Amino acid sequence: MSKTPFNADDGPQCSVSVLRLGHRLVRDTRMSTHSGLVARAFGATEILMTGADEDDTIRSIERVNSRWGGDFRISYSKSWKEVVKNWEGVIVHLTMYGQNLDLAIPKIKESVRRFKDRKLLVIIGSEKVPAEIYSMANFNVAVGSQPHSEVAALAIFLDRFFRGKELYSSFPRAKIRIRPSEREKKIEFGN
Amino acid sequence: MSKTPFNADDGPQCSVSVLRLGHRLVRDTRMSTHSGLVARAFGATEILMTGADEDDTIRSIERVNSRWGGDFRISYSKSWKEVVKNWEGVIVHLTMYGQNLDLAIPKIKESVRRFKDRKLLVIIGSEKVPAEIYSMANFNVAVGSQPHSEVAALAIFLDRFFRGKELYSSFPRAKIRIRPSEREKKIEFGN
Repeated sequence: MSKTPFNADDGPQCSVSVLRLGHRLVRDTRMSTHSGLVARAFGATEILMTGADEDDTIRSIERVNSRWGGDFRISYSKSWKEVVKNWEGVIVHLTMYGQNLDLAIPKIKESVRRFKDRKLLVIIGSEKVPAEIYSMANFNVAVGSQPHSEVAALAIFLDRFFRGKELYSSFPRAKIRIRPSEREKKIEFGN
Repeated sequence: MSKTPFNADDGPQCSVSVLRLGHRLVRDTRMSTHSGLVARAFGATEILMTGADEDDTIRSIERVNSRWGGDFRISYSKSWKEVVKNWEGVIVHLTMYGQNLDLAIPKIKESVRRFKDRKLLVIIGSEKVPAEIYSMANFNVAVGSQPHSEVAALAIFLDRFFRGKELYSSFPRAKIRIRPSEREKKIEFGN
């Protein structure tokens, strides 16, 4: 499994997978694509989709991978339950009902360190999440207790978990790279 | 204008408005709704939509306001250019081509302090953004230089700007509130 190119807490490296529940056809394509792009841009190594088997999301993410580089993976899984049951590592479920993010992060990191493989699964929902998830996850975590967006919750969780360093990740084999600029679009091509 | 219930930097209070560009019918309803909910949950005082005049997004946000409380406002504006031209305060445009977020935040705060009203406008795009925006904004800011999501970019920007305090905002007149919990859904009703 590929590792993120930076450490979660100046300790050992950790790989984060995202499980996106209940993807449904058409209506969720953009939200699922945004979830995948956020997972990639904020340091996760892969996203697993469950629900409808839908190709547009996979194609969008793969297009981004091929242009913008990196080893991010996307795949579909028929059963979220199999993924969660067989997960050898820590499981975090992002939900507005969960415990406070700031209090949870140190506990999650401590928990990740106990696993040899240091694998973290982050579950994000759609509108309805099966009740069992709450007991199957090691941590139910709230990014604020107001309704907002699973895309935002995922970004904030990963940003806090990786302490902002994920925004400086490098993506190998990129055909296109942006150079930050105050007024222009500065794009570099090639390797 | 209502102010956020906390300070951006232990200095004077600041009110943040979000301008969502290029909302189009149907295809963008969920992304626009998520943008609005993120603006509300992460400490902005209002969102202005431009593009198609579409009611579902307004209705969704207003439903959330009435149940979950607070003074967040949503409105439509026919012309983004009028909003931007007439803005009396600082203007930030979130774009993957912009300058580095961490370097920009202190400069933006410094700039906000110079305005008596301390108003900040945060512009988020849809897929195509008019080129003029880059020169009309005071700051073009990149939340990472990888493609991801305007919803995530907005959340991360506000979270950094308000230094995580926005997740502890209170929303007056809520009919429903969540009490953070490790395993359960704990909901409080009434005022």
